[in-house]
Amino acid sequence: MSRRFEATLDLLDLERIEVDIFRGRQPGGEAARPRVFGGQVAAQALMAASCTVEAGVVHSLHSYFLRAGDPTIPIVYEVDRIRDGRSFATRRVVAIQHGEAIFNLQASFHVDEDGYTHQDPMPDVPAPEDLPTTAELAAVHPDAAARFGFIDAWPVDMRFITDPPYLRSVGRAPEQLLWLRADGDVGDDPVAQRCMLTFISDMILLSTQTLPHVGDSSAELMMASLDHLVWFHRPHRIDEWTLYTMRSRTAQGARGFMTASMFSQSGALVASVAQEGLMRTVATRPDHHVGERELEGRTRG
Amino acid sequence: MSRRFEATLDLLDLERIEVDIFRGRQPGGEAARPRVFGGQVAAQALMAASCTVEAGVVHSLHSYFLRAGDPTIPIVYEVDRIRDGRSFATRRVVAIQHGEAIFNLQASFHVDEDGYTHQDPMPDVPAPEDLPTTAELAAVHPDAAARFGFIDAWPVDMRFITDPPYLRSVGRAPEQLLWLRADGDVGDDPVAQRCMLTFISDMILLSTQTLPHVGDSSAELMMASLDHLVWFHRPHRIDEWTLYTMRSRTAQGARGFMTASMFSQSGALVASVAQEGLMRTVATRPDHHVGERELEGRTRG
Repeated sequence: MSRRFEATLDLLDLERIEVDIFRGRQPGGEAARPRVFGGQVAAQALMAASCTVEAGVVHSLHSYFLRAGDPTIPIVYEVDRIRDGRSFATRRVVAIQHGEAIFNLQASFHVDEDGYTHQDPMPDVPAPEDLPTTAELAAVHPDAAARFGFIDAWPVDMRFITDPPYLRSVGRAPEQLLWLRADGDVGDDPVAQRCMLTFISDMILLSTQTLPHVGDSSAELMMASLDHLVWFHRPHRIDEWTLYTMRSRTAQGARGFMTASMFSQSGALVASVAQEGLMRTVATRPDHHVGERELEGRTRG
Repeated sequence: MSRRFEATLDLLDLERIEVDIFRGRQPGGEAARPRVFGGQVAAQALMAASCTVEAGVVHSLHSYFLRAGDPTIPIVYEVDRIRDGRSFATRRVVAIQHGEAIFNLQASFHVDEDGYTHQDPMPDVPAPEDLPTTAELAAVHPDAAARFGFIDAWPVDMRFITDPPYLRSVGRAPEQLLWLRADGDVGDDPVAQRCMLTFISDMILLSTQTLPHVGDSSAELMMASLDHLVWFHRPHRIDEWTLYTMRSRTAQGARGFMTASMFSQSGALVASVAQEGLMRTVATRPDHHVGERELEGRTRG
């Protein structure tokens, strides 16, 4: 278990301030980032909501990113118990910093039931063991080593099936496939597993919208996640190999829209993900200040 | 313009009770239903949110259905202005009846911008004019005439490309394609167009999850929409022909998960939709009371 993994798992250990108010810490040390990672806020908000639900496990979450998070102070999560039913419960969570909402989540919880089953088949892909690690890719592509180092700061082992977003020419189809797993033991608690899945599901996904258009999204675009949604279909350990298939369905008006699926190595569809992303061209907006803390730029006209 | 269409358009004409509190009427006469149609609540909630936003048009909404709506009294919509930014605004709306939340929506609004464009291609399908109307289908299939009459009570002209959900054998792929359009003039206001699109997007979709499993979902299953999500990609008139392509990605644990796309007749991807649905087998639960007003049944064990 790596230190970066331990630091991430610690993020899910929220401090309970009041019955429905929680405080989440920030990662320190090597895991610190210039702004708060969206997956962290979503995972902590989901944990806060889960702490207020007695029966059932989360089966879906819908969230909006409202403002860039400040990584130098904790985040407070206020939970609203909007509904407690017999087999479903629903929660709303607002993440607050500096007196302002930075993130809003709604999530639904379901007691276990039986029912009909079907699912999309898993695509036919190489096994994760037959694919290079990001460290091996960085050694072969020294130009992109810094970008792979960025990935290596995440608590995840990733094996790219399609070319990583940093090793490509313009004009690719807006699709990505990779194997991933948390690089440590998340434990047997399904809540922790689903919070960690949520954390990881916000990685790589946003770059999918850029693949047909630019060579290096980080240099040429101002990007931000606008929303993030996860539906949890089947029990899964995110610390075991998980196939993540992502596709951008459309881009227009400075926004792209991605849908994605996660499969277990045995082929079970374990989660579906959706995300809309902001994608502003920096080159054509010389008057636009792209700050680390800035979610939004100037509007047209 | 039919009376059923006029009655539906009238539903979008909310009464403003206070700055951020609105009241939505129920359809009367032939449009009355035993319980409130989910698309109506979503459309009215979106209209309430839109009435509080000065710049920008809705580009996405995420919502949960919490309790079955009572069609005999109006619905009150309370709007929370959680964020007003320079180019994005976010709203939360709670729909209330009898002192309880029946529905929760969050929506995001974006001022028009330019950006890169790509999209999924439209599938190759027959033209709507070459497909039978639901009245023509009902004449050929008298056994299912009542079900087509149900569709005819909706303010929409539908032309099924795949077999309608009432004309099929068990074991179909969980996919549906149809052309649809509002059967009256919605007008030039993009807000009204997107509210009407939201209303219509909740039709037919839920039955997609049943196609591999049962012969007539209305008789054999207790179903309900759990959530409903729409991303609006491009300007579109929902009173012009719109291709609706739906697929259930998975079903398990009494829940199915659908993703769907709407294309204009010229091939533009105008909206994406997602919905999770409850799908309980009635036959195997003889002790389960399925009431018109009941969203949830008993839990297992």
